[in-house]
Amino acid sequence: MCASVSHCTPGGNFAVMAYQNDLLLKAANKQAVPRPPVWLMRQAGRILPEYRAVRESVNGFKALVSNPELAAEVTIQPVDLLGVDAAIIFSDILVIPEALGLPYEMEERKGPTFARTLQTEQDILALQTDGVAERLKYVADAIKITKERLANRVPLIGFAGAPWTVLAYMVEGGGSKTFSKARAMLALHPALAHLALQKITDATIAYLRMQVAAGADVLQLFDSWAGQLSPDSYREFSLPYMAQICAAIPQVPITMFAKGAFFALEDMAATKASIIGIDWHTPIEFATAACGPNVVYQGNLDPAVLYGSTASIEAATRAMLEGFKGYNHIANLGHGVYPDIDPNSVRTFINTIKAFRWES
Amino acid sequence: MCASVSHCTPGGNFAVMAYQNDLLLKAANKQAVPRPPVWLMRQAGRILPEYRAVRESVNGFKALVSNPELAAEVTIQPVDLLGVDAAIIFSDILVIPEALGLPYEMEERKGPTFARTLQTEQDILALQTDGVAERLKYVADAIKITKERLANRVPLIGFAGAPWTVLAYMVEGGGSKTFSKARAMLALHPALAHLALQKITDATIAYLRMQVAAGADVLQLFDSWAGQLSPDSYREFSLPYMAQICAAIPQVPITMFAKGAFFALEDMAATKASIIGIDWHTPIEFATAACGPNVVYQGNLDPAVLYGSTASIEAATRAMLEGFKGYNHIANLGHGVYPDIDPNSVRTFINTIKAFRWES
Repeated sequence: MCASVSHCTPGGNFAVMAYQNDLLLKAANKQAVPRPPVWLMRQAGRILPEYRAVRESVNGFKALVSNPELAAEVTIQPVDLLGVDAAIIFSDILVIPEALGLPYEMEERKGPTFARTLQTEQDILALQTDGVAERLKYVADAIKITKERLANRVPLIGFAGAPWTVLAYMVEGGGSKTFSKARAMLALHPALAHLALQKITDATIAYLRMQVAAGADVLQLFDSWAGQLSPDSYREFSLPYMAQICAAIPQVPITMFAKGAFFALEDMAATKASIIGIDWHTPIEFATAACGPNVVYQGNLDPAVLYGSTASIEAATRAMLEGFKGYNHIANLGHGVYPDIDPNSVRTFINTIKAFRWES
Repeated sequence: MCASVSHCTPGGNFAVMAYQNDLLLKAANKQAVPRPPVWLMRQAGRILPEYRAVRESVNGFKALVSNPELAAEVTIQPVDLLGVDAAIIFSDILVIPEALGLPYEMEERKGPTFARTLQTEQDILALQTDGVAERLKYVADAIKITKERLANRVPLIGFAGAPWTVLAYMVEGGGSKTFSKARAMLALHPALAHLALQKITDATIAYLRMQVAAGADVLQLFDSWAGQLSPDSYREFSLPYMAQICAAIPQVPITMFAKGAFFALEDMAATKASIIGIDWHTPIEFATAACGPNVVYQGNLDPAVLYGSTASIEAATRAMLEGFKGYNHIANLGHGVYPDIDPNSVRTFINTIKAFRWES
């Protein structure tokens, strides 16, 4: 697969482009790095006043997501303003339901709401998997503009929601404390749920292949509502679909981030995923015991640590780095950064990692 | 401690009153039982039309909680209507903040909201720990009426929120997806958080002692927001206060139910808690490996299983019972029953357990 890119590093599984900062790709490829790369989930977003200014210039969140120029602009902001080692394309996991035929609205503070939801077999059969990538061309355009403007400074991460998490929103019609309507479908109509999950999976594969073709160097699957499922349900309704996606896109490293699914870490490590995202509830030693030395870990600082003092942020960040000692590691929080965190606290987190060196 | 009650079973740690159905107390006391006892978290509540009728007869949830006659009535409903092996007093974990001086309102579908919250040292110093039990006398009255009406048919469970969970509401001012304000206090003002947690703990001990004096046979601490904390934060800000409460009330078995705190199960088993509540995310073999054979387990069926068919509820319930084979076990869900579950599905769950016998 090295033939298609400009530079290859021999020995790794994935082609490594020549970036000025190639720490993320080296770490994702299990190559030695002087210190772990760092980026933050939700780094392009409300923590930055510069992001809020762009968002206020358009008519809401969705207008921003679907505008490639502006999406590229906010994608690059944290590279310039915070100094992260990677960009992640500014988008939303719910573009997939929309491209399948279930549009949604995003209300400030309230979250997403769907006018129509997925309830019956007819609803599921009506989902339009053909042409999904074409309808999401604006994301490919945003990736291309971002890549051009980044000019090989840092790599770019693409992403999608895990099929279970996407289904959960489509059945529930929005956020929920329990996602009990979606879980009721799994319990009462498992065949229907599988039908829907396969359609979402097919659409997600097409969508992520398009992201890679447009220039995404690494992909991440967000299974935000993994923690709503029992281990049995997770094994039946989520993991196989994430595994399918990873197997279908061998070109780039893929991160599986399943919040709350500590019980499935060992199973995730057995898929074709390259990187396993660890949430902040999971003790590092638990994660490394479950997944072993052959994966790359990503995470897992408690996002609430960034509310603390500079000294406490530095200490907790260093403790996390030490915790992953001896393992391939990409530094991150254990979930998205909270919108009311001071950007200077994020800089403290990032700079602590940049100043870190393994004792020789 | 046997002197104060009418009957004692030799060999156990706790006095066992003579109940017509003493399965719960025997199981809590690690005595042999022909089948596990069963009750459900939130069994007294919205699943029952008979509950909704009582609630509609008064001015909202809080009016029901503070009316001992009606609280006793809805407490007993699931014993009569569902056939559970224990009653749990109908009340709310937020009566403690109110008794400390922070009143709240409970809005239908929206959850609790506090007009004033806990932010400063002054706010915390102003909390009135003296007289908490007196201000919550209506709960003792409800317990006494319930006990009288139950007439020794089944034992009665009392409860309180875990101090961290109660603090989380008091700082946040209501429910939250992240409880980030409360977690910010832990990160930035840990000494203030400890001051508040100790006051809540002192109040909770007085409150639970009153419940035991009024007739509660077993107690449960609900740490509903345990899963918001990192393992380090949990060890510092939640577990020690729950352990204090258990140590302060040796008279009855106490259940520690910390949702999402799989990482702390071993530590919980090392406290004076008798019963460890297991949530539905935690594989049974993980829980039993962490806590060992010397505790009593409670749980842990996925509440969403009750959305399924009769056959699937029966199969999943039996699988749970088999999973706890060889351990002391009280059957329950892994969280509160969802309000839209069909009472007949709850009966299927209960009757499957009642029909169960260990193969000899």
